[in-house]
This record gives sequence, structure tokens and C-alpha cells, in this order.
Amino acid sequence: MDKIDLGSQGFLYPMPMTLVGADLSTGPNFLAAAWVSRCQPNPPRLMAALGKVHATNTGIRERGEFSVCIPSVDQVAVTDWCGLNSASRGADKASPFTLFRGSLEHAPMITECPLCLECRLYQTVDLGTHELFVADIVGTWTEKRFLMPDGKPDLAKLRPFVLTMPDNRYWAVGEHIADAWSVGRRYGASELDPE
Amino acid sequence: MDKIDLGSQGFLYPMPMTLVGADLSTGPNFLAAAWVSRCQPNPPRLMAALGKVHATNTGIRERGEFSVCIPSVDQVAVTDWCGLNSASRGADKASPFTLFRGSLEHAPMITECPLCLECRLYQTVDLGTHELFVADIVGTWTEKRFLMPDGKPDLAKLRPFVLTMPDNRYWAVGEHIADAWSVGRRYGASELDPE
Repeated sequence: MDKIDLGSQGFLYPMPMTLVGADLSTGPNFLAAAWVSRCQPNPPRLMAALGKVHATNTGIRERGEFSVCIPSVDQVAVTDWCGLNSASRGADKASPFTLFRGSLEHAPMITECPLCLECRLYQTVDLGTHELFVADIVGTWTEKRFLMPDGKPDLAKLRPFVLTMPDNRYWAVGEHIADAWSVGRRYGASELDPE
Repeated sequence: MDKIDLGSQGFLYPMPMTLVGADLSTGPNFLAAAWVSRCQPNPPRLMAALGKVHATNTGIRERGEFSVCIPSVDQVAVTDWCGLNSASRGADKASPFTLFRGSLEHAPMITECPLCLECRLYQTVDLGTHELFVADIVGTWTEKRFLMPDGKPDLAKLRPFVLTMPDNRYWAVGEHIADAWSVGRRYGASELDPE
């Protein structure tokens, strides 16, 4: 077998880049975060794993509300800037953006981001150095120009990007290769049931 | 403001497609899953949110071990087939693959996948219809041909793919657009500190 073990620091590929918005005692703030995932369809929930050292964690714990904003490839530099700088060290990480709010009082969102999720904290899980915020999604803010004719968000128009670690690279999303819950039907017919 | 609210069923874009491997009472099985994310750097942990209805959940709970295998774009049809079919309804979802194991007894992995993570269950969180498996990563199995000269996995060689919902499309990863913890330095210099 040609397999080799790189040890325990191998990472998952690829991870969606997001900006997590929260109201801190100093004002709104946005943290660059890639360890974010959906976790339940109904009630619709997502989860974000954030290092306890972040000022954002305190804001989410105190307010019980936050946002997950999806930047486009055009925002890769400012997103990375949000990851390089720290509200704890005095950076105003709301300053590059035009903010808006939905129905929640403490879920600041970014007008320049093509899609933003408004979240209410449901549960906090202590993981060690990090904590996991599990939240109900209460709103999905976007613009008509980012939708497909059927009203669903169109990735080709949103143009999000992904992060890989430990090589620390950002990647655009490429071509549409197949449809989910669909392309596998052909596999079943051709490969597994040749008769 | 041009923003519109699509409601609570908006999803995160884009999500990494994986095959979660577990030993069931009927043998090894692979579940197609996209709600998987890293959650802590050290000790290195990942998390997978899986519907309780899945036979895989029972296997992970009973054995305390599982794998997260990253398929390539060449495996999109068989990955989707694993999502369309159910071990509970009698499908043998190990049959399309050549299996191997690392140091854990109950973390079956797929030779055809360019990268597989071997995981030991750390904590289980009840989310409602779904449960969240938080696990220590104990091994990262790949092949030399998928590495960069510096020994890190190369996404351009692994060629993973991502899923978007609710449009249910699979996408290749595209071009390398910038370096993380790097491109933002220029943003800070040019935009925020014009002097």
C-alpha cells in the first residue's frame, strides 16, 4: 500500500471562509473563521468553532447572537486582514464595511458580503482551547442579483472562496461538476448492477 | 438597501464533501456527509453533524471510532451513490471500495480516496434530530503523489469537491486566488493606512 500517515495535524479540505460578526463592548466586530458548518436541517442550525482567546467569543456569549457573513473572492484581502488583526489589540474590524442588521439586535452583518446568516445562540460546547457555538439560523440575507431564477442562492454569482490548511491558501470555487442526489443514480445502474 | 431575507433555510457555501467510515454490525460502511469541519488545532479535533436516523451514528456510538475520507472529483458518482443508498435498507456501501485501516481498529478508510482522517470519538452532542460527533484526529492518510515538495497535502493534486445546498450541486475547487495570513497585509497598508 502506498499510503503514508502525516499524523494528527492533517486538515479538512476545503473550508468555507466566513466573517463572524458580533457586538463587543467596543462595538461591532468581524472575525475571519473557516471552522463553520451547518449541523441540522430543522430547526435549521449551524455551528462555529472559535478559539476562546478571541474577543468575538465573549461577545457571542454575552449577547447570545451573531452573524456568519460569506465574503466573495473580491473581498479576499479584507477578509484576510480581519484574520490578521485583533479587536483585543485595538483593531476596528467593522471599519472596512457598511453594516446592516436584520431582526436580531446583536447580529451585525456586512452589506458588501453577498450572503449573511443571522444567528441566535442555541448551545455552547467547551472543546478545550476552542468553544463551539451552535446556533439557530433566523435569517439569510442576500440580494436578488445573487439568486437563480428559482429563488435559490447561486454560488456562481455569490463567488465565495475556500481555505486550505496547513498550506494556508485561498481558492475560488470552480466548475459545476455534477448534481447531488442525482449523479449517483447512474453510478448505481452502471457499476453495481451491470445486469 | 437591496438586501432580502430568504428565511432560516439558507445554507453555508461551500461545504466539503466527505465519506464518513464506520464499522456497523453488518460490516464497514461509508456515509456521504458535508457537515464536517475542523474545530480545534491542538489537540487536533474535527466534528461531524450526522442525522440520528443513520446506521453510521449507531456504529460511531458503539465503537467510538470512525474515519473521514475525502473523495476526489473522479469519485463524485460513487460518493453521491453513498448518499442515495442506506445501510439500514441493506446497501453494502463498502462494496465499491478497497479498504485499509491505520492504528485504530474501527476506522475503516478508502484506498481510492486521496486523503483519509482517522478519528477517535471525544464527545457527542445532542442537537435534536442530529448529533454532533467531536473527535480527536489520530492519523492523516494520503500518498506521496498528493503532497507538495514541502510535505503538505496539495489541494490541486487531491482535487476534492464541494457541495452547495439547497441547489444541491457539486463543484470542483478552482484557482488559487491568494495566500492566507498574507494577502491581508497589503490590504491594511493600502486601504486602512494610506499614509
